[in-house]
Amino acid sequence: MQAENLLGEQMENPMVRLSYAYATDLIQARLRLINADLTERNRRQIVRSMSSRIKSAESICKKLVKKGHAVTFENAVSVLNDIAGIRVVCYFCDDIYQIAAELQRQSDFRIIKKKDYVKNPKQSGYQSIHLIVGVPVTYRDQTKEMRVEIQIRSFAMDYWAELDAQMCYKKDAGQILHVEREIRDYSDVIAKVDNRMLELRKRIEEM
Amino acid sequence: MQAENLLGEQMENPMVRLSYAYATDLIQARLRLINADLTERNRRQIVRSMSSRIKSAESICKKLVKKGHAVTFENAVSVLNDIAGIRVVCYFCDDIYQIAAELQRQSDFRIIKKKDYVKNPKQSGYQSIHLIVGVPVTYRDQTKEMRVEIQIRSFAMDYWAELDAQMCYKKDAGQILHVEREIRDYSDVIAKVDNRMLELRKRIEEM
Amino acid sequence: MQAENLLGEQMENPMVRLSYAYATDLIQARLRLINADLTERNRRQIVRSMSSRIKSAESICKKLVKKGHAVTFENAVSVLNDIAGIRVVCYFCDDIYQIAAELQRQSDFRIIKKKDYVKNPKQSGYQSIHLIVGVPVTYRDQTKEMRVEIQIRSFAMDYWAELDAQMCYKKDAGQILHVEREIRDYSDVIAKVDNRMLELRKRIEEM
Amino acid sequence: MQAENLLGEQMENPMVRLSYAYATDLIQARLRLINADLTERNRRQIVRSMSSRIKSAESICKKLVKKGHAVTFENAVSVLNDIAGIRVVCYFCDDIYQIAAELQRQSDFRIIKKKDYVKNPKQSGYQSIHLIVGVPVTYRDQTKEMRVEIQIRSFAMDYWAELDAQMCYKKDAGQILHVEREIRDYSDVIAKVDNRMLELRKRIEEM
Repeated sequence: MQAENLLGEQMENPMVRLSYAYATDLIQARLRLINADLTERNRRQIVRSMSSRIKSAESICKKLVKKGHAVTFENAVSVLNDIAGIRVVCYFCDDIYQIAAELQRQSDFRIIKKKDYVKNPKQSGYQSIHLIVGVPVTYRDQTKEMRVEIQIRSFAMDYWAELDAQMCYKKDAGQILHVEREIRDYSDVIAKVDNRMLELRKRIEEM
Repeated sequence: MQAENLLGEQMENPMVRLSYAYATDLIQARLRLINADLTERNRRQIVRSMSSRIKSAESICKKLVKKGHAVTFENAVSVLNDIAGIRVVCYFCDDIYQIAAELQRQSDFRIIKKKDYVKNPKQSGYQSIHLIVGVPVTYRDQTKEMRVEIQIRSFAMDYWAELDAQMCYKKDAGQILHVEREIRDYSDVIAKVDNRMLELRKRIEEM
Repeated sequence: MQAENLLGEQMENPMVRLSYAYATDLIQARLRLINADLTERNRRQIVRSMSSRIKSAESICKKLVKKGHAVTFENAVSVLNDIAGIRVVCYFCDDIYQIAAELQRQSDFRIIKKKDYVKNPKQSGYQSIHLIVGVPVTYRDQTKEMRVEIQIRSFAMDYWAELDAQMCYKKDAGQILHVEREIRDYSDVIAKVDNRMLELRKRIEEM
Repeated sequence: MQAENLLGEQMENPMVRLSYAYATDLIQARLRLINADLTERNRRQIVRSMSSRIKSAESICKKLVKKGHAVTFENAVSVLNDIAGIRVVCYFCDDIYQIAAELQRQSDFRIIKKKDYVKNPKQSGYQSIHLIVGVPVTYRDQTKEMRVEIQIRSFAMDYWAELDAQMCYKKDAGQILHVEREIRDYSDVIAKVDNRMLELRKRIEEM
């Protein structure tokens, strides 16, 4: 309990929160450049929406405990990759790869990890690409690398994920298994819609 | 050209634009009450997002010309129902009817027109409910009724409509016919997904 | 303690908070109309900025206790006039009266109370006009009157009030008396600046 | 005219505007860190508000013409220092120097120019510090330095500058001279208020 309070205090420290916010501001500004660049090259909008969030001290504690780590500030900052997170929703499923590729081309960011849940969907049916990016945050003459998790998903997958979150909410363990299987099946249906819309777009582009 | 300029000036008049903005602010504040009420009764979020826009003088001109009316301020205000517009996106397709029903229960608004493009989809495949609502806007001791168009659609239909807009953009007349048929077919596919997600939610609710 | 928790729950109820928010949205939309109207008539901007806040359950409790009332929801809603508050900052000190006069001309609002701290500054030196306004908030076929406190002050007085808040912060009782006297003296200085800027503006207008 | 159109097109190019926006986003995120740092060290809020703007193609043209330069994209980008601008308003006049000093300590920004209009007020009476800062903007493996003008002023000087702008608006040349002299005199009055509030704050801090 004391550990939690101390962690809370340190995580709520304005310099710590603002350093994470600095990193997400910087990536979002870069994503606007990437979107403008891709929009010009593809002659259509690529990014539909973007949002960011910084985890509360409370959920940081829960995640540390769940992962079996001591609840300390140092562990939070070094073990957790998703204290700062950005979600990018694009129109079509091939846009996901275009955006991920551009992020990997940025010479001042370091790609720490990449998970392709589009090629290998999660058990739940969830599809998206997750990048853990290291961003240099300078203050005075010191530069620290802050990590940010970027989730890139298509509009169709965003639809599935949001409805999934609505439906799995407050179901108990016995029921949840059954529901989850059904929702997973629907993720296939929606992934098919996603792909057919992509094919249609390609046919239109070739006209 | 002169008519257009005069109309532009009158439409850009702050009191005119702000009266329309007043009406949309009022409806959006009411929709937040409706959402809170429905969320409590249904024990889940109903409205996913809301946005509003006021037509530019330029598109008002175009629409008047297209409809065969003289380009005057009086015609704009009395003939066009969608100078001020609000779009409401909800999670499931049955939420559309809940929201529309609540709007019709508000005793200080007048429902001028209702179009159910869910029961009778447009030629293009487009599905949503459109309400034209008359809202009393008081200034000093005078009250005018301002009209606002409210479009209510499901998340799935919002997906279809946005991708449709992206794909039909800049196609010429010959091609567009062919493309439109395909997109219409996809609207059926997505409407099916919409309905199956609804059925799944109902089954979960009954567990 | 239990009373506080119950009050907290009731005040945090979305329908209650959103009803207050509805009232402030409505007044702010009206103030934008008033500003546009006054701006046109005076040929210069009148309102510099506007903001609103709804009191937290915690400060509602404190205020009820301080005023000697039992901590109940009914008392909160019926006794406190400033659960919802709007602050309007205008450029010159005569603008305060123009805005207050227009608010009093709105036939659908009820002016419950008016305090003129410009003519009769508070002990602290604070100058502004406070209006308690009753706004009809309709939901379905029911209309309740919600009360909103509107504070109208000049840019110069906003400067004084903000610096006052910064300086009186965390001083103890013995010191505060001495400081308060000094700050009050400065409020006179700033009020003089406010009036001289007004005279200058009038001279310019007559040129 | 053709030059203007071409410049307009190039300045409105999303990659150009977004590069300037990137630079202002980055500086504003840094200023939030600076504010948090100074707030902690001074135990009071330092920055009252912050805003940014990017000059329109139209005002860039005007400024190039006024400065006697050909209206070209290259001239705009290389000659003008204030295409992107940030305004920082702080509470007291000594805060201006604290913020400027911190900006100059940031090792990844280059201070291109510094003008101290507090020590040497402009003819008009205007007081503030202007820094032209060079910010590295990286895209892929290329880094360009974008210039941003940062204006730092006190709340009191912000008051004077805004009222000055309101009053000098639309006066003709003959009258303006007379008015300007008066307004300049008022800038002295307000500078004195600014300094006396600072002295008062210092006395309170020493209690």
